[in-house]
Amino acid sequence: MNVIRNFLDLADLSRDEVVDLLALAQSLQSRPEPTALAGKILGLLFLNPSLRTLASFQAGMQRLGGTAFVVTPGQGTWQVETRDGAVMNGGAAEHVREAIPVLASYCDALGIRSFAEGKDLAADLAEEQFMRMANLCPKPLVNLESAVNHPCQALADWRTMDELAVPRTGKFVLSWVSHPRALPLAVPAATVHMAAQRGMDVVVLRPEGYALPDAIMHKARAAAAASGGNVSETADRESALRDAHVVYAKEWGSPLHYGDADGEAKARAPLGGWCVRESWFQHARADCHFMHCLPVRRNVAVADEILDGPRSRVIREAANRMVVQMAVLHRLLKGN
Amino acid sequence: MNVIRNFLDLADLSRDEVVDLLALAQSLQSRPEPTALAGKILGLLFLNPSLRTLASFQAGMQRLGGTAFVVTPGQGTWQVETRDGAVMNGGAAEHVREAIPVLASYCDALGIRSFAEGKDLAADLAEEQFMRMANLCPKPLVNLESAVNHPCQALADWRTMDELAVPRTGKFVLSWVSHPRALPLAVPAATVHMAAQRGMDVVVLRPEGYALPDAIMHKARAAAAASGGNVSETADRESALRDAHVVYAKEWGSPLHYGDADGEAKARAPLGGWCVRESWFQHARADCHFMHCLPVRRNVAVADEILDGPRSRVIREAANRMVVQMAVLHRLLKGN
Amino acid sequence: MNVIRNFLDLADLSRDEVVDLLALAQSLQSRPEPTALAGKILGLLFLNPSLRTLASFQAGMQRLGGTAFVVTPGQGTWQVETRDGAVMNGGAAEHVREAIPVLASYCDALGIRSFAEGKDLAADLAEEQFMRMANLCPKPLVNLESAVNHPCQALADWRTMDELAVPRTGKFVLSWVSHPRALPLAVPAATVHMAAQRGMDVVVLRPEGYALPDAIMHKARAAAAASGGNVSETADRESALRDAHVVYAKEWGSPLHYGDADGEAKARAPLGGWCVRESWFQHARADCHFMHCLPVRRNVAVADEILDGPRSRVIREAANRMVVQMAVLHRLLKGN
Repeated sequence: MNVIRNFLDLADLSRDEVVDLLALAQSLQSRPEPTALAGKILGLLFLNPSLRTLASFQAGMQRLGGTAFVVTPGQGTWQVETRDGAVMNGGAAEHVREAIPVLASYCDALGIRSFAEGKDLAADLAEEQFMRMANLCPKPLVNLESAVNHPCQALADWRTMDELAVPRTGKFVLSWVSHPRALPLAVPAATVHMAAQRGMDVVVLRPEGYALPDAIMHKARAAAAASGGNVSETADRESALRDAHVVYAKEWGSPLHYGDADGEAKARAPLGGWCVRESWFQHARADCHFMHCLPVRRNVAVADEILDGPRSRVIREAANRMVVQMAVLHRLLKGN
Repeated sequence: MNVIRNFLDLADLSRDEVVDLLALAQSLQSRPEPTALAGKILGLLFLNPSLRTLASFQAGMQRLGGTAFVVTPGQGTWQVETRDGAVMNGGAAEHVREAIPVLASYCDALGIRSFAEGKDLAADLAEEQFMRMANLCPKPLVNLESAVNHPCQALADWRTMDELAVPRTGKFVLSWVSHPRALPLAVPAATVHMAAQRGMDVVVLRPEGYALPDAIMHKARAAAAASGGNVSETADRESALRDAHVVYAKEWGSPLHYGDADGEAKARAPLGGWCVRESWFQHARADCHFMHCLPVRRNVAVADEILDGPRSRVIREAANRMVVQMAVLHRLLKGN
Repeated sequence: MNVIRNFLDLADLSRDEVVDLLALAQSLQSRPEPTALAGKILGLLFLNPSLRTLASFQAGMQRLGGTAFVVTPGQGTWQVETRDGAVMNGGAAEHVREAIPVLASYCDALGIRSFAEGKDLAADLAEEQFMRMANLCPKPLVNLESAVNHPCQALADWRTMDELAVPRTGKFVLSWVSHPRALPLAVPAATVHMAAQRGMDVVVLRPEGYALPDAIMHKARAAAAASGGNVSETADRESALRDAHVVYAKEWGSPLHYGDADGEAKARAPLGGWCVRESWFQHARADCHFMHCLPVRRNVAVADEILDGPRSRVIREAANRMVVQMAVLHRLLKGN
């Protein structure tokens, strides 16, 4: 693999290319290259809050000898408009049609975080907003989380399972968990695809009404078909967790109530029991790992006993964000 | 030209000195100096929002081997008081009389952004607030936009016209355009002066009631007299744009309603037609360039057809911000 | 002294160790080491506003060849929960139990600022919140101000007095001053201890009801006993300031009304006269220095005539923040 143009979706890479990228990540840990990206600048545009992404991309660039700058509309920078054709007489002073090429002109690669708008499911599934922005960027682009993708998280999670020697064909359970309100589909979509692409036996566990959209399941199944994996879904926790190697918890909103806060609130009101506890693991493998992308609401989505217990790999996943992103940056800015 | 002490106003430089500075900017592009400012630190104090200035100064320092830090009162940093003699029992916890010398002690040069207060026209024309702060700074100082100046923007715009081979004596139209509310006089004042100092035939096109203050026009005319240029003003769009080489759009508030939001709203209510469209260019030169400092409100100040069309130079102007600022930083921190 | 593990409290160091650290600070000024921390990364987590700490730690790392990243919950980053066992169904999306080890994984040392909660005096005196966070950090940790400590400020103030040749046994008056509301005990606690540890004749001057808590006075007295200094307290301004070498002003809330805004407001209503003016210095030494940690509310806590007059050392104190912190970072990340 040579220089890659963008890092937008793990599905843009073959399974072997992902494995190669993870090998580079490991290599950069074993044999640091503190000047590989000397003189290179990463621009980071955050339309949404961040902790891991914000810190790990800056630190990753610094560990490779490069630098980064951060722009956060609404926090010291003008609010931005993303819709084409907008008559801009409201709060937003600047359009991404200017902001993105301008920022790109200052840096060697640009990262953009832009969560789902959460109003029109089809538009979000099509990544309409993110792709409008991506198409404006003449420099290598990194997806820092879009409406239905989070490839940096997926790559870090893959590495985490490799480090833990989770079998390629192991059982991976992506479980819906409770949250005060609907969250985007980005991480569940990226995660189910990643586990399928890795070749795993993937089970999506979710209550009725919270099935992932067909487009997301279809993409994951296509990845499974190519890698020898499998993807299924169920609302039955006991069968889902039986013999599981990994339980990966994630909050997401119901596709049936997309953009409808009241409907969503009613739908999730009876689902407070979907808070991961040790009792969930009764029939899982004894060494079953617990994963979550963070941030996580303790004792709402996941109980303290899990997050503070021996199954939890959440800190390692987050630490791996920097490790894998260094490989991505190296490929984007340095090549092979 | 050797080390300069401050970069506050293009009028502090002779025309030849500006040309020299632009030659240095070009030289730093052709023959990068990635370690010229190694070990040098730029402090950036933003009392107002920013995108280009925030990103381009950080990136420019990084491209010269230096570093920068950003301080944004009200966004993670205490709100600051700027008035002398204030009894500080309100929201501001810190006075610039402390903040500025303290920040200056940490860096090798300081940049300050401080928009017009927009209450007292005479005070803003005299740059009272900015100069209070400038006088507190014992290190080289950069004006990141003050009440009636924006020298970094002006310098970038000059370079942009040089790149586009706009004749020194070409016709330059600064046109008022619509906006939901009054904006400061900084960019129009800096722009009319810059074009005059370059030696151009400058026309200020604005509706009745929006003539630029005498002090601003007088300063521009003095620059024109020195450079062989000319400055005039009119409310007649057709005559203004006839044979124009450049149309530079900018929003500003009426000096007649300074600090009076209601009076301003009434004055601009009928002026919605001052949104630049292709039809404006009927009598301009066929290759007439469109310029704007950004951010711009699409379809309020300027129509999509212009910003997305072949006349627009707005991205190039913004990209040139970093280029010319690198020359400024080099002069401030490195010398000749 | 070799590598130190953390920098949390000046009381963790012997007097000689503080003197050693200040000697390193001076050495780094006299003989800069611009690559000492090349490749090292400092993470900075701010749960509260900052100007000096924010800028001086970034600049200090840069002057030693390292870099830093800044994370500010609530300003572009998720709000964080700090309480153990919390059911996180409110505004905070992330718990420090995850945030701190994750951020630590990206950097070589972490700084945390976390002001007093201001509700439970015993909990704040015990540094319960800060220590919960400190115990989560596997990397060298710097206290950027906690509930009842601010060791970086104390170290800078010690250096400032050394530079001014204030005698080791000189008279040091820590005086309460007025403020619109209660402020934390961090700086008064750190300051009284620092001056005692330096060996000074320390007088705490405060109105009735504003005596510092016993735990703070006891710790200061223990430091005085070890260094040959002395600590006393009084409400009598004239006797306190007589022959003083230094007056150090600070705002703090009454321990008698801790967490009770109404009680506090009533208690401080009659104390507006506690604004430092030149008349206070009538019986002090002629060359008595005025100190304050900043930010300071002019003409509420301290009059302009003092801050702008010849006694004021407040800018020098703040400038010394960077100087001493460079020594701390050098010890934490480089060793002897």
